[in-house]
Amino acid sequence: MAAVLTWEESVTQSINTVYLLFSAYLVFIMQLGFAMLCAGSVRAKNAMNIMLTNVVDAVVGTISYYLFGFAFAFGTGTSSVNPFIGTSLFALNSVPDETTYDYAYFLYQWAFAIAVAGITSGSIAERTQFSAYLIFSFLLTGFVYPVVAHWLWSSAGWLSASSDSLLFGSGAIDFAGSGVVHLVGGVAGLWGAIVEGPRVGRFDVFGKPMPMRGHNATLVVLGTFLLWFGWFGFNPGSFTKILVPHIPGAHVYEGNWTGVGRTAVTTAMAGSTAGLVTLFGRRILVGHWDAMDVCNGLLGGFVAITSGCAVVEPWAAIVCGFVSAWVLIGLNVLALRFKYDDPLEAAQLHGGCGAWGLIFTGLFAKEEFVVEAYNSGAAGGERPFGLLMGGGWGLIGAQVVEVAAIVGWVSVTMATVFYVLHKLRLLRISVDDELAGLDVSSHGGYAYVAHHPEEGHPRFYADYIRINQDRGPQS
Amino acid sequence: MAAVLTWEESVTQSINTVYLLFSAYLVFIMQLGFAMLCAGSVRAKNAMNIMLTNVVDAVVGTISYYLFGFAFAFGTGTSSVNPFIGTSLFALNSVPDETTYDYAYFLYQWAFAIAVAGITSGSIAERTQFSAYLIFSFLLTGFVYPVVAHWLWSSAGWLSASSDSLLFGSGAIDFAGSGVVHLVGGVAGLWGAIVEGPRVGRFDVFGKPMPMRGHNATLVVLGTFLLWFGWFGFNPGSFTKILVPHIPGAHVYEGNWTGVGRTAVTTAMAGSTAGLVTLFGRRILVGHWDAMDVCNGLLGGFVAITSGCAVVEPWAAIVCGFVSAWVLIGLNVLALRFKYDDPLEAAQLHGGCGAWGLIFTGLFAKEEFVVEAYNSGAAGGERPFGLLMGGGWGLIGAQVVEVAAIVGWVSVTMATVFYVLHKLRLLRISVDDELAGLDVSSHGGYAYVAHHPEEGHPRFYADYIRINQDRGPQS
Amino acid sequence: MAAVLTWEESVTQSINTVYLLFSAYLVFIMQLGFAMLCAGSVRAKNAMNIMLTNVVDAVVGTISYYLFGFAFAFGTGTSSVNPFIGTSLFALNSVPDETTYDYAYFLYQWAFAIAVAGITSGSIAERTQFSAYLIFSFLLTGFVYPVVAHWLWSSAGWLSASSDSLLFGSGAIDFAGSGVVHLVGGVAGLWGAIVEGPRVGRFDVFGKPMPMRGHNATLVVLGTFLLWFGWFGFNPGSFTKILVPHIPGAHVYEGNWTGVGRTAVTTAMAGSTAGLVTLFGRRILVGHWDAMDVCNGLLGGFVAITSGCAVVEPWAAIVCGFVSAWVLIGLNVLALRFKYDDPLEAAQLHGGCGAWGLIFTGLFAKEEFVVEAYNSGAAGGERPFGLLMGGGWGLIGAQVVEVAAIVGWVSVTMATVFYVLHKLRLLRISVDDELAGLDVSSHGGYAYVAHHPEEGHPRFYADYIRINQDRGPQS
Repeated sequence: MAAVLTWEESVTQSINTVYLLFSAYLVFIMQLGFAMLCAGSVRAKNAMNIMLTNVVDAVVGTISYYLFGFAFAFGTGTSSVNPFIGTSLFALNSVPDETTYDYAYFLYQWAFAIAVAGITSGSIAERTQFSAYLIFSFLLTGFVYPVVAHWLWSSAGWLSASSDSLLFGSGAIDFAGSGVVHLVGGVAGLWGAIVEGPRVGRFDVFGKPMPMRGHNATLVVLGTFLLWFGWFGFNPGSFTKILVPHIPGAHVYEGNWTGVGRTAVTTAMAGSTAGLVTLFGRRILVGHWDAMDVCNGLLGGFVAITSGCAVVEPWAAIVCGFVSAWVLIGLNVLALRFKYDDPLEAAQLHGGCGAWGLIFTGLFAKEEFVVEAYNSGAAGGERPFGLLMGGGWGLIGAQVVEVAAIVGWVSVTMATVFYVLHKLRLLRISVDDELAGLDVSSHGGYAYVAHHPEEGHPRFYADYIRINQDRGPQS
Repeated sequence: MAAVLTWEESVTQSINTVYLLFSAYLVFIMQLGFAMLCAGSVRAKNAMNIMLTNVVDAVVGTISYYLFGFAFAFGTGTSSVNPFIGTSLFALNSVPDETTYDYAYFLYQWAFAIAVAGITSGSIAERTQFSAYLIFSFLLTGFVYPVVAHWLWSSAGWLSASSDSLLFGSGAIDFAGSGVVHLVGGVAGLWGAIVEGPRVGRFDVFGKPMPMRGHNATLVVLGTFLLWFGWFGFNPGSFTKILVPHIPGAHVYEGNWTGVGRTAVTTAMAGSTAGLVTLFGRRILVGHWDAMDVCNGLLGGFVAITSGCAVVEPWAAIVCGFVSAWVLIGLNVLALRFKYDDPLEAAQLHGGCGAWGLIFTGLFAKEEFVVEAYNSGAAGGERPFGLLMGGGWGLIGAQVVEVAAIVGWVSVTMATVFYVLHKLRLLRISVDDELAGLDVSSHGGYAYVAHHPEEGHPRFYADYIRINQDRGPQS
Repeated sequence: MAAVLTWEESVTQSINTVYLLFSAYLVFIMQLGFAMLCAGSVRAKNAMNIMLTNVVDAVVGTISYYLFGFAFAFGTGTSSVNPFIGTSLFALNSVPDETTYDYAYFLYQWAFAIAVAGITSGSIAERTQFSAYLIFSFLLTGFVYPVVAHWLWSSAGWLSASSDSLLFGSGAIDFAGSGVVHLVGGVAGLWGAIVEGPRVGRFDVFGKPMPMRGHNATLVVLGTFLLWFGWFGFNPGSFTKILVPHIPGAHVYEGNWTGVGRTAVTTAMAGSTAGLVTLFGRRILVGHWDAMDVCNGLLGGFVAITSGCAVVEPWAAIVCGFVSAWVLIGLNVLALRFKYDDPLEAAQLHGGCGAWGLIFTGLFAKEEFVVEAYNSGAAGGERPFGLLMGGGWGLIGAQVVEVAAIVGWVSVTMATVFYVLHKLRLLRISVDDELAGLDVSSHGGYAYVAHHPEEGHPRFYADYIRINQDRGPQS
């Protein structure tokens, strides 16, 4: 039983737990969003495979994050503080911690962790052995991602914006993880897709790209809306508390309710703007209105605002979304030129727009909101904020360092993982299997069964003539 | 940072924000519900088109509602009060307002606003140019709908049930918007469908209706359940506060928790009753059990209870649902007789059941609940309630005025919009394109791709024989 | 209007209502999860039928549970207390009760109730007359299930763990209903499937099972993730209160926030473990990685942890999930041997894993958590807990009694219902209809429409040449 607390402590814990848990549930449903988005974006013959990888991301990630991922990210112990990696709380040992982490916090962070491998899965879709997924998702969710989360989100992290020793007096602001989640997943996917090479037939012998359309636009739209829904847990939920504990003895409370609501608004604004710009941008480029492009544009806007969602005004979110649409369009053009094949555009979308989001925050973060989000409850004080808002070079500098640090760390670790898998012949499937499709070669059949050849065969009639005799007529 | 408030104020703000934001998220997911319902209800060749219009409704509506929709609806300013239209808060200027509107309130209202164009989109599905959607949804979400919302839901509105000067001493009760949302969307759809005329082939040369079944019943069921889920945000969330601020100094609070819960119950009861009555009613009429009919019946029940959900007893919700099923069945018969073609039955369902819902509230609203919902925290006092409950003619009169006012306002504005689009040849697509399907003619391809003719072609083997050589065997 | 309460009472009611209502909404979305899971797991020709039964479960169950189901379960009245069945609160008469039940509580219990018939529907899918569903779901939701709920969850129930007179000094712990919901639904399905016999063609003339794969793996994954999402309402929500009312006058509160969070964690851990074990277990048994098996494994883990979710440590949840995977695999082998045909494996999954979950709780329940969940706010005291945790035989004994009592009660009632339906020729459809598929024979057409033969016919051109003349060019 929770310790007997005062009335004020009990109310605070209750409200914050409800807020955080339901936010976690929303983040979790993004796993379904990714699964549907991925399924719709690949060819029918690989639909079962990609969905299974999404389910397996979730279950493998749960075990891996429970055993040591959470510890690497948030296990700051009391005696030693390591700015690079956490060292306690393995297997939820000593959780709930009496002062900081309760189970709800773990659940919220868990929902983030399992999303990362889902992003990377998209980049290597339609040509990867199933066992490779098991290995990389275990390592990514359990080690590579948590280390980055520790840097940014643990109070001990060297890049954290709320530690005692702030980089450039500022620390990097990655409120809900444009970098920690999306850039990490995107860079990992980039290396996976580079090591694997394009899908068979993606570029013809002259290097010309051949269209490989996803098999089901309905699933893409379903996944996109579910991701939007889930982003309302991802971004506004990242305050983790809506009612901030009082200053002891003063009976004065300060709350995040306005910040939480504003974060939901900036999120919707950035995504909508990006979607709309993509709609017209692609109309001009390709000559028709493309639902899948709009969906990807929307998601790019969400990815970009994720870093700064809590520290910018709604009008700035429109700027963020506008640019992110062009970042995505531009990177997709580049990808074709370099014969980079990423079935979900995951590296471009999560990597490219994620990096833009970090820079954007360094440009547009508003002083008042930075203080609100990162000095909560303290006396406050001056700190760097957005360069274009007059906040100096401290924040933008830290943001650039975050981009470089994430790209470096994930490249070193995940490129190695994919290269070793490749050398061990555990990464890519054979051409025959690729042409036949993964569902038949690895999963025992297609995702969709339209015909049932067994039916109508007389032997079944023979066996069941009896049944028909003592059943009633059709309903 | 939110201003430093007292402990009681902080707790109240925190609880109410959690309640309102999560309700808003549920209302938002109705956008996905509409998208899936619409997609399933049209033919496969138009599935991508209808989904794109739903996505675009959301993104265009977000920008439009942010820029001026919210202002027209709730911008009552402090100096001048206009009973017909709001005049401040453009682009969220001066939000959060220190006393009334925070961002969570905007988000909740935004989720309502983008739903309206989704309703109308259904009526004109399968035959409308994409650019027409862009134009009408911008105008509907940004102007036509907000004006009606101002009349009913702003404290300055001439039809409001909580203003200082109540029409007929009562004002119209449209708690969550049978009229404001559904009747508006339905009447707009009615005019769109009338100006466009039926789909090619909907009626043969003898005027006999030809069946045009939706292509995917699974999507219809998916959409229906998601809408039901979202309605739990739409109706119970419309209290907007669950913990009502205390009477200053008295340390006495009054809460809406019972009302919120009861509203969820009446919502479920009305929908279920309507679904069940439709099941049997249609079984008698057409001879089989039809899932799509039941889904539409359910939705009709939800639409009808939306006005009175907070002010009637659960038993009355059953009456509401029972009648709404027959309203929908009857209007569908009429629609066929008048050769009115509405692929989603949107005018019949949202318009017809929405109008019935307003009348129903005028008949069955219970005094105690009306006082609870509309006199919260005030000294209270006598006011009109349901005619059949002995509450006099004040309320039912105001409800009838609301129906007439909405039908009039939306007809004048939206019929004009659609007629002008028609005259500018921006409304309907060509017969050739209609027969081919919008997905091919406007969106670059079908929503579903079953075959991949590019595969198996030898030239791909030539290019990738190398890859196969240094990859491992099949997983 | 809610009675005017003190500030502390008002805050408590508000927080708990938000927590309980949103949990109820999550449980409700499981109805959609079941519908999608079922639809994907049957053949395309029966997809519409199975979805309609899921919709009808919800609407019939709503009416039935409102009229008398809730009363049988929780209607303990003030004068007489019946340990076997409730006797008051019919049609929500005298709800809200001033001390115990408000509407939110009804809604939460309603969402559980409608899930039960959904489970059973899976067992008898693809061969059952529609009217049989109407009858059995009315009886199951309105009578058979509520009686079991009364035994376990009403304070008057003879098996309850929180009554004044505890069986074996312990009572059975079925926190969120491994037994009350899943075992009940599974046993009912078992009898339905036995009385009906296997689908035509499920076993050939030599008794060899013929594969009858579901038609859409995407829907199976969609349904599974939605059920996982909903389980976060089902299990953590079953505390029903997160802020426990104070000890009058003492201004001391105790809360369930840690328990609620931990319950969400144990739920995720058990499901993930079971999914992972199934993945490898089935890989060894059938030679490929099967998404549908993993989905069923996951669900089996959730079913099993549902009983003990609030009273075990996360590590124990891993044990629970590990065993439940093998329970499901083993029962599926047995089912084939005995020619038992259950299209959704509902009896094996919900029945088998549900029974295991009850036993698991008797073995692993931790003393501290049992006291927390069942002695909340009271002075506490020693009571039996998990056998393997040193808690004696009281709890495990009560758990065994619960399994036996549920199997007995549901068998007596539901086997009778199905047998009578069978004798009245109201249960099974004819062989011809079964081969043709229920969608065509009972529901007027297939769930999916790919072709539209009416289009392109010249007569439509004739009628619409006029339209084409005054419409614009393609968009």
